[in-house]
Amino acid sequence: MQEESVLKKEDNFSVWYNEILKRAKILDVRYPVKGVYVWYPYGLKLRNLIYGILRTLMDDEHEEVLFPLLIRRDELLKEKEHIKGFEEEVFWVTHGGTTELDVPLALRPTSETAMYPIFKVWIRSHRDLPIRVYQIVNTFRYETKHTRPLIRLREITSFKEAHTAHASREEAETQINKAIAIYRNFFDQLAVPYVITKRPDWDKFPGAEYTIAFDTLMPDGRTMQIATLHMLGENFAHTFDIRYEAEDGSSRFVNQTCYGISERCVAAVIAIHGDDRGLVLPPRVAPIQVVIVPIIFSSTGDTPSEKVKEACNAIYNELKGAGIRVFLDDSPDRPGAKYYYWEMKGVPLRIELGPRDLTNVSCTFVRRDNFAKRQVPLNTVVQSVNKTLDDIQHCLHARAMQKLKICAINGDTEPKDAIREGIIALPLCDNESCGKKLEESIGANVLGEVLYAAAHRARRNACAICAREGEDVLVARTY
Amino acid sequence: MQEESVLKKEDNFSVWYNEILKRAKILDVRYPVKGVYVWYPYGLKLRNLIYGILRTLMDDEHEEVLFPLLIRRDELLKEKEHIKGFEEEVFWVTHGGTTELDVPLALRPTSETAMYPIFKVWIRSHRDLPIRVYQIVNTFRYETKHTRPLIRLREITSFKEAHTAHASREEAETQINKAIAIYRNFFDQLAVPYVITKRPDWDKFPGAEYTIAFDTLMPDGRTMQIATLHMLGENFAHTFDIRYEAEDGSSRFVNQTCYGISERCVAAVIAIHGDDRGLVLPPRVAPIQVVIVPIIFSSTGDTPSEKVKEACNAIYNELKGAGIRVFLDDSPDRPGAKYYYWEMKGVPLRIELGPRDLTNVSCTFVRRDNFAKRQVPLNTVVQSVNKTLDDIQHCLHARAMQKLKICAINGDTEPKDAIREGIIALPLCDNESCGKKLEESIGANVLGEVLYAAAHRARRNACAICAREGEDVLVARTY
Repeated sequence: MQEESVLKKEDNFSVWYNEILKRAKILDVRYPVKGVYVWYPYGLKLRNLIYGILRTLMDDEHEEVLFPLLIRRDELLKEKEHIKGFEEEVFWVTHGGTTELDVPLALRPTSETAMYPIFKVWIRSHRDLPIRVYQIVNTFRYETKHTRPLIRLREITSFKEAHTAHASREEAETQINKAIAIYRNFFDQLAVPYVITKRPDWDKFPGAEYTIAFDTLMPDGRTMQIATLHMLGENFAHTFDIRYEAEDGSSRFVNQTCYGISERCVAAVIAIHGDDRGLVLPPRVAPIQVVIVPIIFSSTGDTPSEKVKEACNAIYNELKGAGIRVFLDDSPDRPGAKYYYWEMKGVPLRIELGPRDLTNVSCTFVRRDNFAKRQVPLNTVVQSVNKTLDDIQHCLHARAMQKLKICAINGDTEPKDAIREGIIALPLCDNESCGKKLEESIGANVLGEVLYAAAHRARRNACAICAREGEDVLVARTY
Repeated sequence: MQEESVLKKEDNFSVWYNEILKRAKILDVRYPVKGVYVWYPYGLKLRNLIYGILRTLMDDEHEEVLFPLLIRRDELLKEKEHIKGFEEEVFWVTHGGTTELDVPLALRPTSETAMYPIFKVWIRSHRDLPIRVYQIVNTFRYETKHTRPLIRLREITSFKEAHTAHASREEAETQINKAIAIYRNFFDQLAVPYVITKRPDWDKFPGAEYTIAFDTLMPDGRTMQIATLHMLGENFAHTFDIRYEAEDGSSRFVNQTCYGISERCVAAVIAIHGDDRGLVLPPRVAPIQVVIVPIIFSSTGDTPSEKVKEACNAIYNELKGAGIRVFLDDSPDRPGAKYYYWEMKGVPLRIELGPRDLTNVSCTFVRRDNFAKRQVPLNTVVQSVNKTLDDIQHCLHARAMQKLKICAINGDTEPKDAIREGIIALPLCDNESCGKKLEESIGANVLGEVLYAAAHRARRNACAICAREGEDVLVARTY
């Protein structure tokens, strides 16, 4: 344990982010292939806790499946819009051993074309519907832009993709709304704030009728897309001939949706809550929720030391018994070095216990989010820990919500200036040329028509470019 | 639910196996790429429960990590013995989009060459040792032989591979023994019997000093390798230059081990316990441990039906509350169709409850393993279920153990005849030519020197081929 230079998150977020992934042992970036990384044990525990929440939410109405990684070239090429969106981004397997394959195989960039030929054989009648499945898998994109750990990768190690098929368009629409509710619940549990927009037509998922997206605001004032939902309508059903026999005996195409979340959700948790001392993890997903640090001065003789150790062990066992993820740091390092280390690791609550605490039959709580210290009687430790963890969870959420600023452009602010602070809201018509013109003029992207955002309304409804009638859209510089 | 023809497991195991994967919805084999399959929800639940046990066992002394799928060609080629073993089996990614890659990338066939360059940077001093990590990942082999679901695949979807590094050879040997204990515990929980042997030198893992393997006996009299452990010694440490500073300041190479289990463990559970009616799942890993079937005759009027439903709901809630994986089948199908269906799915225990049971304030238990029926008072259902599930678990294990026959060859039996029944034990010297001669003469494989097997000792110790002094080895026809 060696104290390293302080990281200034506000000064240079990008440097802070890379440094924190390394120091807190989330990812090792030294793997010798561009855009792919190694998950350290601590990082993977964080990932698994986050995906555990997602899995529980999904399991309520979806079934988990697992489809192969390899997709035949001819299947991938079937949906013409779809492949146009991916053809420059697909990794191709061309050889098995020293033999050239008959048909090149793609590493899935996403699984529509892997799943839907099988949906075709799974679905016969209306009784087979709806199908609601999901999988959590590695997916691949040949990113040629600058790659960034967890954010822009060549191997997305944990892409949660859900795919559904329904008897009617209405049911598919309802499913999209249910999925939005699931995703809201998920990001709320991560204390990650978001806006929800309907992406402009020129930015929708290749092959979809429309795309809805969740974006969060990163500390550098840019937004990051953290979830997408796609109404596929009958597009893929026609391509892959997915039909069912309706109750009246007629043969109909299914209506489909798909929606996904990648490990950007982990990036968001790290980026949004962290501070200059390192990670700050929401209790719900912290691999270690409480660290206990015994304060033992070698000068005070043996008896108090032993009693301190005993008391720490007792707290440890009590908390563990109550299902709290607790760690007792009884290493020989100085307490100061331990504080530094566990703060960097983002542990939400530290319990210090020394001879003075023991005299008061209490211990000291130190919160990671605001560094508030207080004495807590030993006989109320479990309930106090639970209460404090809940409070930290809520405070982190509230603090993050406040930082997600949306500036409504009402004539008195220049979009170009406001965009430097975060997201702006202004009216825009649905004309692609107006959207592109706006994007170019302020160097930002139209996220889309607002479906959910706290406090964003602009006062006008005239398109910011052509002055025809428009709808409020959100605009931001994006990742 | 449609009743299909009875499957005869003993008559043609291979047909039975493929048919059961389909009927019980474990895997869909219709995916249009050779050797890769689709996990159905039910199959995946079974897989997840099995791997959950493995994960819990591993987590005790290992840390979970996640390394990339893609391995640079030059890294994969570094260890000469290693690549010789894999060069005909590796899938190669050669293109990203329409661009040819500078360096072809292999899909990991196993992760030594992905992990060990990173071990080199993780390990500096003796304080960094031991390293004990594992990951559960998809791995790829370009199998040219006949592929079989879960057994011989091109995408192994869940390869659990552990890799360790130690300061000394002794510690590495100790680790191998610990891992053997973990694997024994794992297969015991699956009620899967096994023999453990040290593979002959000509059949060890490429790059290892020696290999220890677990094999189980399949219903067709062939053995299937279900786990391997490899002592790597300093071989890979020299190739990848993995050294540490010892306490005395000297620089030393680490000693390494690795050991793995693939989804063949799922195949073993299905193959060993199943019968002519379908799957028979050990309660520990059954996605549904108990199915409740209400017996409702439409002719008996409303009142008894309602009471039966109420009683079934009450049992369901009680069992669920006790943490038992229970399903209440209140579909309109006939009870007989339900029995047929849930027997095929391998549910260990069925609870039937009809008006007559209700009169006796009891219900009827029907065991999947032996079809024994008994009345159980309603007020003892939870404890009776727990006791019965435990008993089924033990009975399945005992029954499977009895089927793993080892025939000691003592002069009175011909190896060629005995090998048709299963595993034979006979003495063999360590000369490769004797081994190969034996293998050819009886059309079977030497599994290796016996480390663990119930009742196998041969009475002689003269090599079956050359009559020089030999050690007992096991021999079998293998998958």
